[in-house]
Amino acid sequence: MIIEIDFNSDEALYLQLRNQIIMGIATSQFREGDSLPSVRQLADTIGINMHTVNKAYTVLKQEGYVKVDRRKGAVIAIDVDRMRTLEELKRELQVTLAKSRCKNISKEEIHELIDEIYGEYGGLK
Amino acid sequence: MIIEIDFNSDEALYLQLRNQIIMGIATSQFREGDSLPSVRQLADTIGINMHTVNKAYTVLKQEGYVKVDRRKGAVIAIDVDRMRTLEELKRELQVTLAKSRCKNISKEEIHELIDEIYGEYGGLK
Repeated sequence: MIIEIDFNSDEALYLQLRNQIIMGIATSQFREGDSLPSVRQLADTIGINMHTVNKAYTVLKQEGYVKVDRRKGAVIAIDVDRMRTLEELKRELQVTLAKSRCKNISKEEIHELIDEIYGEYGGLK
Repeated sequence: MIIEIDFNSDEALYLQLRNQIIMGIATSQFREGDSLPSVRQLADTIGINMHTVNKAYTVLKQEGYVKVDRRKGAVIAIDVDRMRTLEELKRELQVTLAKSRCKNISKEEIHELIDEIYGEYGGLK
Protein backbone atom coordinates (compact mmCIF):
# COMPACT_ATOMS: atom_id res chain seq x y z
CA MET A 1 0.00 0.00 0.00
CA ILE A 2 1.01 3.59 -0.45
CA ILE A 3 1.72 5.47 2.77
CA GLU A 4 1.57 9.24 2.37
CA ILE A 5 3.29 11.20 5.08
CA ASP A 6 3.12 15.00 5.10
CA PHE A 7 6.29 16.25 6.77
CA ASN A 8 4.86 19.79 6.84
CA SER A 9 1.73 18.77 8.73
CA ASP A 10 1.07 19.76 12.34
CA GLU A 11 -0.05 16.22 13.01
CA ALA A 12 2.52 13.93 14.65
CA LEU A 13 4.15 11.49 12.21
CA TYR A 14 3.14 8.39 14.19
CA LEU A 15 -0.51 9.55 14.10
CA GLN A 16 -0.35 10.14 10.36
CA LEU A 17 1.07 6.65 9.93
CA ARG A 18 -1.60 5.15 12.20
CA ASN A 19 -4.35 6.94 10.27
CA GLN A 20 -2.99 5.78 6.92
CA ILE A 21 -2.93 2.17 8.08
CA ILE A 22 -6.49 2.44 9.42
CA MET A 23 -7.58 3.91 6.08
CA GLY A 24 -5.75 1.02 4.37
CA ILE A 25 -7.81 -1.46 6.40
CA ALA A 26 -11.05 0.41 5.73
CA THR A 27 -10.38 0.26 1.98
CA SER A 28 -9.33 -3.42 2.10
CA GLN A 29 -5.75 -2.75 1.12
CA PHE A 30 -4.97 -4.57 4.36
CA ARG A 31 -7.13 -7.49 5.43
CA GLU A 32 -7.51 -9.46 8.63
CA GLY A 33 -4.41 -11.63 9.08
CA ASP A 34 -2.17 -9.63 6.73
CA SER A 35 1.29 -8.85 8.05
CA LEU A 36 2.40 -5.24 8.19
CA PRO A 37 5.95 -4.47 7.01
CA SER A 38 8.59 -4.81 9.71
CA VAL A 39 9.34 -1.67 11.69
CA ARG A 40 12.76 -1.34 10.10
CA GLN A 41 11.45 -1.90 6.59
CA LEU A 42 8.67 0.69 6.89
CA ALA A 43 10.98 3.22 8.55
CA ASP A 44 13.45 2.82 5.66
CA THR A 45 10.75 3.04 2.99
CA ILE A 46 9.16 6.21 4.35
CA GLY A 47 12.40 7.73 5.59
CA ILE A 48 11.36 8.15 9.21
CA ASN A 49 12.72 6.98 12.53
CA MET A 50 12.11 3.36 13.62
CA HIS A 51 10.86 4.73 16.93
CA THR A 52 8.05 6.56 15.10
CA VAL A 53 6.91 3.42 13.29
CA ASN A 54 7.08 1.49 16.55
CA LYS A 55 4.89 4.07 18.25
CA ALA A 56 2.30 3.88 15.44
CA TYR A 57 2.21 0.06 15.71
CA THR A 58 1.87 0.25 19.52
CA VAL A 59 -1.09 2.65 19.24
CA LEU A 60 -2.70 0.42 16.57
CA LYS A 61 -2.31 -2.51 18.94
CA GLN A 62 -3.82 -0.57 21.88
CA GLU A 63 -6.74 0.54 19.74
CA GLY A 64 -7.47 -2.99 18.56
CA TYR A 65 -6.39 -2.98 14.92
CA VAL A 66 -3.22 -5.05 15.15
CA LYS A 67 -1.78 -7.95 17.12
CA VAL A 68 1.88 -8.73 17.45
CA ASP A 69 2.81 -12.25 16.44
CA ARG A 70 6.18 -13.56 17.56
CA ARG A 71 7.05 -14.85 14.11
CA LYS A 72 4.97 -12.79 11.71
CA GLY A 73 5.40 -9.44 13.48
CA ALA A 74 2.51 -6.94 13.39
CA VAL A 75 -0.59 -8.57 11.91
CA ILE A 76 -3.98 -6.98 11.18
CA ALA A 77 -6.44 -8.25 13.79
CA ILE A 78 -9.54 -6.19 14.41
CA ASP A 79 -10.90 -6.24 17.91
CA VAL A 80 -14.51 -5.19 17.47
CA ASP A 81 -15.51 -3.71 20.80
CA ARG A 82 -18.60 -1.85 19.63
CA MET A 83 -19.30 0.01 22.86
CA ARG A 84 -15.78 1.33 23.15
CA THR A 85 -15.67 2.16 19.45
CA LEU A 86 -18.95 4.07 19.57
CA GLU A 87 -17.77 6.05 22.60
CA GLU A 88 -14.50 6.99 20.90
CA LEU A 89 -16.34 7.79 17.72
CA LYS A 90 -18.72 10.10 19.53
CA ARG A 91 -15.87 11.94 21.25
CA GLU A 92 -14.12 12.49 17.90
CA LEU A 93 -17.27 13.57 16.12
CA GLN A 94 -18.10 16.02 18.92
CA VAL A 95 -14.87 17.90 18.24
CA THR A 96 -15.29 17.71 14.47
CA LEU A 97 -18.90 18.94 14.63
CA ALA A 98 -17.99 21.71 17.07
CA LYS A 99 -15.47 22.96 14.51
CA SER A 100 -17.98 22.83 11.68
CA ARG A 101 -20.58 24.59 13.84
CA CYS A 102 -18.15 27.44 14.57
CA LYS A 103 -17.52 27.79 10.85
CA ASN A 104 -21.19 27.75 9.81
CA ILE A 105 -21.22 24.32 8.20
CA SER A 106 -24.75 22.91 8.54
CA LYS A 107 -25.77 19.49 9.79
CA GLU A 108 -27.07 18.71 6.31
CA GLU A 109 -23.68 19.47 4.80
CA ILE A 110 -22.06 17.06 7.28
CA HIS A 111 -24.50 14.30 6.33
CA GLU A 112 -23.75 14.93 2.65
CA LEU A 113 -20.00 14.84 3.28
CA ILE A 114 -20.37 11.49 5.02
CA ASP A 115 -22.31 10.02 2.11
CA GLU A 116 -19.65 11.39 -0.24
CA ILE A 117 -16.82 9.74 1.71
CA TYR A 118 -18.69 6.44 1.90
CA GLY A 119 -19.31 6.73 -1.83
CA GLU A 120 -15.57 6.95 -2.40
CA TYR A 121 -15.02 3.78 -0.39
CA GLY A 122 -17.85 2.15 -2.31
CA GLY A 123 -15.97 0.60 -5.17
CA LEU A 124 -13.25 -0.77 -2.96
CA LYS A 125 -15.00 -3.17 -0.64
CA MET B 1 -16.33 28.06 31.04
CA ILE B 2 -15.17 24.72 32.36
CA ILE B 3 -12.08 23.33 30.71
CA GLU B 4 -11.66 19.59 31.20
CA ILE B 5 -8.17 18.28 30.63
CA ASP B 6 -7.47 14.55 30.83
CA PHE B 7 -3.88 14.16 31.96
CA ASN B 8 -4.04 10.41 31.22
CA SER B 9 -5.09 10.93 27.60
CA ASP B 10 -2.82 10.13 24.67
CA GLU B 11 -3.86 13.41 23.11
CA ALA B 12 -1.44 16.32 23.54
CA LEU B 13 -2.55 18.83 26.21
CA TYR B 14 -2.52 21.79 23.82
CA LEU B 15 -4.83 19.91 21.44
CA GLN B 16 -7.21 19.02 24.27
CA LEU B 17 -7.27 22.69 25.25
CA ARG B 18 -7.84 23.79 21.65
CA ASN B 19 -10.69 21.29 21.25
CA GLN B 20 -12.33 22.41 24.50
CA ILE B 21 -12.25 26.04 23.41
CA ILE B 22 -13.69 25.14 19.99
CA MET B 23 -16.46 23.20 21.73
CA GLY B 24 -17.02 26.21 23.97
CA ILE B 25 -17.52 28.40 20.90
CA ALA B 26 -19.83 25.83 19.29
CA THR B 27 -22.02 25.78 22.41
CA SER B 28 -22.00 29.61 22.73
CA GLN B 29 -20.07 29.64 25.99
CA PHE B 30 -17.65 31.84 24.07
CA ARG B 31 -19.02 34.33 21.56
CA GLU B 32 -17.47 36.46 18.83
CA GLY B 33 -15.50 39.27 20.49
CA ASP B 34 -15.15 37.57 23.90
CA SER B 35 -11.70 37.66 25.44
CA LEU B 36 -10.08 34.39 26.42
CA PRO B 37 -8.31 34.29 29.78
CA SER B 38 -4.68 35.42 29.67
CA VAL B 39 -2.13 32.69 29.05
CA ARG B 40 -0.83 32.95 32.60
CA GLN B 41 -4.30 32.88 34.14
CA LEU B 42 -5.45 29.82 32.22
CA ALA B 43 -2.18 27.99 32.87
CA ASP B 44 -2.59 28.64 36.60
CA THR B 45 -6.26 27.62 36.65
CA ILE B 46 -5.73 24.32 34.84
CA GLY B 47 -2.33 23.64 36.34
CA ILE B 48 -0.42 23.33 33.09
CA ASN B 49 2.58 25.04 31.57
CA MET B 50 2.16 28.53 30.05
CA HIS B 51 3.91 27.23 26.95
CA THR B 52 1.09 24.71 26.46
CA VAL B 53 -1.62 27.37 26.67
CA ASN B 54 0.36 29.56 24.31
CA LYS B 55 0.61 26.72 21.79
CA ALA B 56 -3.17 26.13 21.97
CA TYR B 57 -3.85 29.86 21.37
CA THR B 58 -1.39 29.92 18.47
CA VAL B 59 -3.11 26.96 16.81
CA LEU B 60 -6.54 28.54 17.38
CA LYS B 61 -5.24 31.68 15.69
CA GLN B 62 -3.80 29.74 12.74
CA GLU B 63 -7.07 27.86 12.32
CA GLY B 64 -9.15 31.02 12.35
CA TYR B 65 -10.95 30.93 15.71
CA VAL B 66 -9.05 33.63 17.56
CA LYS B 67 -7.31 36.94 16.91
CA VAL B 68 -4.72 38.51 19.14
CA ASP B 69 -5.53 42.05 20.22
CA ARG B 70 -2.70 44.11 21.64
CA ARG B 71 -4.78 45.25 24.61
CA LYS B 72 -7.46 42.58 25.05
CA GLY B 73 -5.22 39.57 24.38
CA ALA B 74 -6.74 36.53 22.64
CA VAL B 75 -10.24 37.33 21.39
CA ILE B 76 -12.73 35.00 19.70
CA ALA B 77 -12.87 35.94 16.02
CA ILE B 78 -14.15 33.35 13.60
CA ASP B 79 -12.63 33.40 10.16
CA VAL B 80 -15.20 31.60 8.04
CA ASP B 81 -13.26 30.24 5.10
CA ARG B 82 -15.79 27.67 3.92
CA MET B 83 -13.63 26.00 1.30
CA ARG B 84 -10.74 25.48 3.68
CA THR B 85 -13.06 24.34 6.47
CA LEU B 86 -14.82 21.82 4.24
CA GLU B 87 -11.49 20.41 3.07
CA GLU B 88 -10.22 20.02 6.64
CA LEU B 89 -13.55 18.55 7.70
CA LYS B 90 -13.43 15.99 4.94
CA ARG B 91 -9.88 14.94 5.86
CA GLU B 92 -10.89 14.47 9.51
CA LEU B 93 -14.08 12.61 8.67
CA GLN B 94 -12.19 10.30 6.31
CA VAL B 95 -10.04 9.08 9.20
CA THR B 96 -13.01 8.84 11.59
CA LEU B 97 -15.11 6.92 9.06
CA ALA B 98 -12.21 4.60 8.20
CA LYS B 99 -12.00 3.70 11.89
CA SER B 100 -15.72 3.07 12.15
CA ARG B 101 -15.65 0.99 8.98
CA CYS B 102 -12.87 -1.24 10.38
CA LYS B 103 -14.93 -1.75 13.51
CA ASN B 104 -18.18 -2.56 11.69
CA ILE B 105 -20.05 0.64 12.50
CA SER B 106 -22.52 1.29 9.69
CA LYS B 107 -23.07 4.50 7.77
CA GLU B 108 -26.56 4.69 9.29
CA GLU B 109 -25.12 4.55 12.80
CA ILE B 110 -22.81 7.44 11.94
CA HIS B 111 -25.72 9.52 10.67
CA GLU B 112 -27.63 8.76 13.88
CA LEU B 113 -24.63 9.70 16.01
CA ILE B 114 -24.37 13.03 14.23
CA ASP B 115 -28.05 13.79 14.84
CA GLU B 116 -27.54 12.81 18.49
CA ILE B 117 -24.59 15.19 18.93
CA TYR B 118 -26.46 18.03 17.21
CA GLY B 119 -29.41 17.29 19.48
CA GLU B 120 -27.19 17.81 22.50
CA TYR B 121 -26.07 21.18 21.16
CA GLY B 122 -29.67 22.02 20.42
CA GLY B 123 -30.72 23.67 23.66
CA LEU B 124 -27.61 25.76 23.89
CA LYS B 125 -27.66 27.89 20.78
